[in-house]
Amino acid sequence: MADKKKARVTVDIYGQTYTVVGTEPSSHVRYVASLVDEKMREISKHNRHLDSKRIAVLTAVNSVNEYLKMRDKVKELEEELKNLKG
Amino acid sequence: MADKKKARVTVDIYGQTYTVVGTEPSSHVRYVASLVDEKMREISKHNRHLDSKRIAVLTAVNSVNEYLKMRDKVKELEEELKNLKG
Repeated sequence: MADKKKARVTVDIYGQTYTVVGTEPSSHVRYVASLVDEKMREISKHNRHLDSKRIAVLTAVNSVNEYLKMRDKVKELEEELKNLKG
Repeated sequence: MADKKKARVTVDIYGQTYTVVGTEPSSHVRYVASLVDEKMREISKHNRHLDSKRIAVLTAVNSVNEYLKMRDKVKELEEELKNLKG
């Protein structure tokens, strides 16, 4: 990863501008931002009384939870592969 | 999932209290919340000028990105398994 150049990508999430610095292609950063924006709008729809900070935190909670489920699925599949390969 | 009772779990994230409603065990909700709290503190350490809403949004961006990587890994492993099983 050391040879990858870091780029700054500006995205719009929930009406605010963010600068994301990283090695990912800008198209990927924009895609991730659009998913976060979408999740935040979805959560706010069901929780009209919440301010945007709380909506952002609950979006993070939701995303970490989905990440953990995928991580468990990876472990499970790796185990299955290991058993199949003997 | 229809027979699972929804529970309310109160957690503390980045100095604020949140009530998470869902079917997950409360220990899991607390674990997820602790990961989000940790991520937010990590991001704030490197971005001292950011307010907590922006830190929360960047935590969500980070988490969705990690989720997508795991999702790709799942697809890859499923493909490998499919090929092995013939």
